[in-house]
Amino acid sequence: MNLLVYAFENFPEVEISSFLPETILISAIENNWTWEEGDIVVVAQKIVSKSENRLVNLMDVEPGQRAIKYGKSTGKDARLVELILRESKKVIRTRNGLMIVQHKLGFICANAGIDHSNVKGPDENPESWVLLLPKDPDKSASIIREFIKNETGKNVGVIIIDSHGRPWRKGIVGLTIGISGVPALIDRRGYKDRFGYQLRVTEIGSADELAATASILMGQADEGRPVVVIRGYPYALRESYTNELFRSENDDLFR
Amino acid sequence: MNLLVYAFENFPEVEISSFLPETILISAIENNWTWEEGDIVVVAQKIVSKSENRLVNLMDVEPGQRAIKYGKSTGKDARLVELILRESKKVIRTRNGLMIVQHKLGFICANAGIDHSNVKGPDENPESWVLLLPKDPDKSASIIREFIKNETGKNVGVIIIDSHGRPWRKGIVGLTIGISGVPALIDRRGYKDRFGYQLRVTEIGSADELAATASILMGQADEGRPVVVIRGYPYALRESYTNELFRSENDDLFR
Repeated sequence: MNLLVYAFENFPEVEISSFLPETILISAIENNWTWEEGDIVVVAQKIVSKSENRLVNLMDVEPGQRAIKYGKSTGKDARLVELILRESKKVIRTRNGLMIVQHKLGFICANAGIDHSNVKGPDENPESWVLLLPKDPDKSASIIREFIKNETGKNVGVIIIDSHGRPWRKGIVGLTIGISGVPALIDRRGYKDRFGYQLRVTEIGSADELAATASILMGQADEGRPVVVIRGYPYALRESYTNELFRSENDDLFR
Repeated sequence: MNLLVYAFENFPEVEISSFLPETILISAIENNWTWEEGDIVVVAQKIVSKSENRLVNLMDVEPGQRAIKYGKSTGKDARLVELILRESKKVIRTRNGLMIVQHKLGFICANAGIDHSNVKGPDENPESWVLLLPKDPDKSASIIREFIKNETGKNVGVIIIDSHGRPWRKGIVGLTIGISGVPALIDRRGYKDRFGYQLRVTEIGSADELAATASILMGQADEGRPVVVIRGYPYALRESYTNELFRSENDDLFR
């Protein structure tokens, strides 16, 4: 049993209002990639956000009282803090340079996923532009999936990923922020192991394992490989939503 | 750029005191696998522990006062709790059925990684046997790596993985518990992104991304694919230790 994990080379710079699903299909052709049923397309959040014009100029942001307060306590630019707060449901922890928040989309991450790196705004003052996460990444994923289905006839799955830090362990890892047609979780609770015992904790965070896999090839800096396709996934594809992955507050010992 | 992720089929049942490095090499031959420089061998913790005879019979465990107390508060078998406490530095959180501890090996995980599933003891009462993590998984990894080097002449990396739950997100994912010759972290902090900005948080949890990748093919139940090889890893191999991955308590907002 094997997986092929293939990163498209020479993926073009994504422009604001690029139609990303088409850019992906063109890149597939240029990479001589022939789609098969069950391929899983993993897309870096940054190109999705950029194609959806989620760039914000900090010059245009007026920080409120709360942002000014958190800006002081964390040492972060109060305008950036204002955006972090607007993108969040709840502040979970803060410290110097860092705000851990529950994003409006439901997951917990640093700085609401807002970042400078690999972002260049449309004007002469690129340092002041930042990029928000896509508004509805599950929908972004489903648009890519449907476009590929329409154009090629193949049912594929799509995952949109970002790289997040973690409690307890160093190092950012690729995690799912949007999904369409790939199981977020694989439920093995009904299964028995090799000796016939009932398995206990056996929901597998399968989409996040796929996200981590693709992330190995995407890199973080100037590599420019934001689209990776995984072939050979051993579970059946199904409709799914990112929020399957979120622990409820009651079920979470670490908030 | 691509990765090949290959799971050995028909891996034999690992017996207590099997010499695992040799079992892996024989399985490679049976799978027609030709080793190449830089291959990364990912091995499920369970077969490492079993080959190192880390089975314990709960019948032989006398729970102390602390174990009895935690047993009552969590509803867990006090003998199992006793083993969890012996394997741990510190109890982090508990609730019904669950103890989150800092393992003596340094990482934080549920129930000190002790499990019933896929464990069959040597006698007629298999339900009472549990399996502890390897005593020194970095060393276990390095023994496998050196054996492969000696027998095949190829420098490979080795990761030993287990599947752990996570704060905030549902689903267990493959994580590194032992490593030899693979970078635990990739440090990109000196790098600039595509537009020349300095990257900020850019230690990549690369070994954990590899662990998650292999975990997709290993499965959790009766699949029996405990050894996976990854070819095409895009970073240089280097000497490394699992404890590179551990956040210090000061650096961790979630303990």
